[in-house]
Amino acid sequence: MNHPAQFDIVGIGNAIVDVLAHADEGFIEAHGMQKGSMTLVDERIAETLYREMGPAVEMSGGSCANTIAAAASLGIRVAFIGKVADDQLGRIFTHDLTSAGVHFDTPAAADGPSTARCLVFVTPDAQRTMATYLGASVELGPDDIDTDLVATAQYVYLEGYLWDPPEAKQALREAIAAAHQAGRKVAMTLSDPFCVARHRSEFLELVAGPIDVLFANQLEAESLVEVGDVWAAVEVLQGQAELVVITRGDQGSLVVTPEAVFEVPPVRVPEVVDSTGAGDLYAAGFLFGLTQGWDFVHCAQAGAAAAAEVISHFGARPERDLGELVRIAIREEV
Amino acid sequence: MNHPAQFDIVGIGNAIVDVLAHADEGFIEAHGMQKGSMTLVDERIAETLYREMGPAVEMSGGSCANTIAAAASLGIRVAFIGKVADDQLGRIFTHDLTSAGVHFDTPAAADGPSTARCLVFVTPDAQRTMATYLGASVELGPDDIDTDLVATAQYVYLEGYLWDPPEAKQALREAIAAAHQAGRKVAMTLSDPFCVARHRSEFLELVAGPIDVLFANQLEAESLVEVGDVWAAVEVLQGQAELVVITRGDQGSLVVTPEAVFEVPPVRVPEVVDSTGAGDLYAAGFLFGLTQGWDFVHCAQAGAAAAAEVISHFGARPERDLGELVRIAIREEV
Repeated sequence: MNHPAQFDIVGIGNAIVDVLAHADEGFIEAHGMQKGSMTLVDERIAETLYREMGPAVEMSGGSCANTIAAAASLGIRVAFIGKVADDQLGRIFTHDLTSAGVHFDTPAAADGPSTARCLVFVTPDAQRTMATYLGASVELGPDDIDTDLVATAQYVYLEGYLWDPPEAKQALREAIAAAHQAGRKVAMTLSDPFCVARHRSEFLELVAGPIDVLFANQLEAESLVEVGDVWAAVEVLQGQAELVVITRGDQGSLVVTPEAVFEVPPVRVPEVVDSTGAGDLYAAGFLFGLTQGWDFVHCAQAGAAAAAEVISHFGARPERDLGELVRIAIREEV
Repeated sequence: MNHPAQFDIVGIGNAIVDVLAHADEGFIEAHGMQKGSMTLVDERIAETLYREMGPAVEMSGGSCANTIAAAASLGIRVAFIGKVADDQLGRIFTHDLTSAGVHFDTPAAADGPSTARCLVFVTPDAQRTMATYLGASVELGPDDIDTDLVATAQYVYLEGYLWDPPEAKQALREAIAAAHQAGRKVAMTLSDPFCVARHRSEFLELVAGPIDVLFANQLEAESLVEVGDVWAAVEVLQGQAELVVITRGDQGSLVVTPEAVFEVPPVRVPEVVDSTGAGDLYAAGFLFGLTQGWDFVHCAQAGAAAAAEVISHFGARPERDLGELVRIAIREEV
């Protein structure tokens, strides 16, 4: 069953356009949002928040889509599966992904909710607080999973946020089955500590079961196994997936295999302008390394280099040539 | 007829959403665009260019709308008249203007072309080359001019670009008549040297006729009167309008009255990140000064301060408190 892979990575995630504006702490509090985290909102609340939001900028987002766009810029063959509506924001999302070099042909929803938006409120401390209206993303269903496509990719990469839209779960289970049947690997990110809290028991089953590579930041890993310390989380998670990769901000990352734990330092930047996308880009660099057959420490260094690029500017998609940055980070040792 | 003004400025312009991406010089050449200038394109060419454009960011634009949004941030009472379609980009444009504090209630076009887009290609030298699809802007007609609104504003501000959509001219003539009938002043910007070339004879008539305050950059002023030197342009234009204001980039600006010419230096910035919007913001600062009854040199200093803010970051709308910057620029002398 193990044909040569046609794609290096296929990502499955929510197809979201970000709407970014500045806001003060009072605005976040007054609207009952949790600073620094993502809240799901319905269309009515999204409309209300948007009305009260300041002048904004729109850019394509979505955690998994950010990872896949970054992986494309590293020069590997990538595809994305996700659901937009047939509207202007959907066309913007599609354009930004395909023009980055990503294969993306999930049919847009012809009717129903509009393309998903994430209202991003940037506070003076450069933190982001997000309110997501899932819109057309909730229409992603088993029919949208091109299992042939999935079977031809070396890695399938899933975002935890996909467990939020009710219909997507079955689609994901089919994708996982198709990947494994073809002898491919399945990677997943836990996305967000609150997302972990919403789906903890399912995520635990997945990690102990079909997930081969798990990405999580420290808070997400701790939340998953309900401990208050990253090393305690490492102890519980070690061996549950083949690889458990835990990012720790300016403390670098941990790569946990059944046999060992590798601590890898971060790539330092002169100024953190906007930390969003750090985890998404780290995953892109790490997965890129895996597809090149690199050892885990080099994979983690590639992840750190990609993350460093994206936190140096506003927005969660890369602006510079990631390939060069990754080569510098691993000092051409590979 | 001279009732107290309810608005300080009402702007009339094309309602446009900017779509910005990086591009190299070769792309500009290959598509026959003139680097640094704006080309009008039809929907088919806009679609083709967009397909070949890299991943982009969307933000509300339009020269006059940028001026009006900036004037709102200076704390004066402003309104905008312009035509969007009833679509997602139209709602984005409307949101960004109203949330900046601008009164904007021109009815959106229910059918016909979609909201206008300006594809902005940013080359490595930080210059912008623009391709504009006017879309719903061409639907602006005499019915959209709320002459009562115009009559209640101290200044009406028109953009030269409005002479491109065929239906808008009659609307503008009605706006000018309504303003003058109410004893108000009419200001206009020439917008772009190519726009001047398209409409030179009409613009010359307007400047010699109903326009009270003319804004132009050096190239536009030279193009209007077909001379190759700014002082030659000053000589021809002096006295044609009550005030002729000519911006000259890092050489500051000239304020030309029938009696005198004032040279005002620019406000220096550490780094010019993106020069777009400089003229739009200069006009906002200058008009703000006029509505406050300031002398012309202080008006020009306010314009320079507002322009300095907008060239210090990406995008053509202000990110910082312009009021404070203007107060610093004029050193609290007023």
